[in-house]
Amino acid sequence: MARRSDHSREEIKEMALAAAEHIVAMEGCQGLSARKIAKAIGYTVGTLYLVFKNLEELILHVNARTLDTLYAEMVDAANDCETPEQCVMALGNCYIHHANSYSRRWGMIYEHITPEGEEVPDWYQAKVSRMFALVERALEPMTTLSDEERKRAARVLWSGVHGICNLQHANKLDVVGESSGQELAEALISNYLKGLSA
Amino acid sequence: MARRSDHSREEIKEMALAAAEHIVAMEGCQGLSARKIAKAIGYTVGTLYLVFKNLEELILHVNARTLDTLYAEMVDAANDCETPEQCVMALGNCYIHHANSYSRRWGMIYEHITPEGEEVPDWYQAKVSRMFALVERALEPMTTLSDEERKRAARVLWSGVHGICNLQHANKLDVVGESSGQELAEALISNYLKGLSA
Repeated sequence: MARRSDHSREEIKEMALAAAEHIVAMEGCQGLSARKIAKAIGYTVGTLYLVFKNLEELILHVNARTLDTLYAEMVDAANDCETPEQCVMALGNCYIHHANSYSRRWGMIYEHITPEGEEVPDWYQAKVSRMFALVERALEPMTTLSDEERKRAARVLWSGVHGICNLQHANKLDVVGESSGQELAEALISNYLKGLSA
Repeated sequence: MARRSDHSREEIKEMALAAAEHIVAMEGCQGLSARKIAKAIGYTVGTLYLVFKNLEELILHVNARTLDTLYAEMVDAANDCETPEQCVMALGNCYIHHANSYSRRWGMIYEHITPEGEEVPDWYQAKVSRMFALVERALEPMTTLSDEERKRAARVLWSGVHGICNLQHANKLDVVGESSGQELAEALISNYLKGLSA
C-alpha cells in the first residue's frame, strides 16, 4: 500500500470522507470499513485513525455532511411557499426526494446508532435541531399554536414523513399499496394541519 | 461439531428459527449467520440449507413469526376500544410497546430488504396486509370515508407511528425532543383523524 505524506490533516480528512461517501453510495453502509477507506486514499489505517478517533466518528462526519446537503435543499424548497401547508408540503417532498435520490447515504443517518454511553456531540445535534426549526418556522403563521404544540407538530410531521420514506424504502411491508409515498405524505400533512386548526 | 439426525425436517426448522431469534435478540440482525445458527442447534450448515433455501428465507420466517406475535397483540389491544380514535390509539400504543420490548427483532423486519428481482412471497404479504386491515377496520365507523381514503389513512397512520418508533429507536435525530414517542403518536392519530372528519 502506498504511503504518502503530502497532504495536510484537513486534506486527509476531506479525502477520507469523500472516499467513505463513495463506498456507501456503491455498497451501502455495510460495505464501509477503515481498511477500504484507507486503501481508497492511499494511506494506512493508522493514518486514518490519527485524523478520526474511530470509524464511528468518521461515520458521524459523513452523516453531518448528508444533513448539510439536506438542510440546504430544504431551505431552498421552502423558499417559494406561502401557507404553512404549502411550506410543510415543500419540506416533506424535499425530504422524500432526497431519501429517494441518495437512499444509501440517507439510510446511514438512521442505521448508525451512537454506541451506548456515548453522547451525540453538540455540533452534530445543532445540525439536527435546525432541521426541525425549519418545520417549526413554516408553522409560525398558525398563531393559535403554543410553542410546545408547534414543536410537537414539527416532530410528528417529520417522523411521519420519515416513516413513509422508511417503509417505502425497505419495500418490505408494501405499506404504500397503490399510493406513492408522496401522496401519503401529502395526506398526512394536509389532514394533520387541518386537525390542528380545527 | 456434533451431527445428529434424530430430528424431523419440521423440528430442525423450528429449532433453527428459535436459535435465530435468540441470536438476534442477543446480538441484533448483524450477528446472524448460518454458521452460528447451525452451531447452536448442533447441525451442519449443509443440513440447515436442506431446510431453508438460504439465509434470506430463514430471516423471512423469523420476521413472519414476529409479525404473528405483533398481530396477536394488536388484535387483543383493539378488543376493548369503542371509537375509531380509541381503537387506532390502542393499535398505535401496542405497536410502540412491541417495538420497545423487542427492538432487535422488530428492527429486523425493516432491515431485511428482499433481494432485487425477488418477490415477497404471497404467504408473507398476507401477514402484512392483515396488519393494515386491523387499522382499516378500526376506521370503519367513519362512514364518510371512501374505501380508498380509509386504506390511505391506515397506511399514513401506520407509517407515522412506525416513523416515530424508528427515530426514537435510532436515538439519532433526537426527534422526539421532550415528548415521548407515545405522546407524539397520540398527537398524530388525534389530529389526523380530526382533520379527516373536518
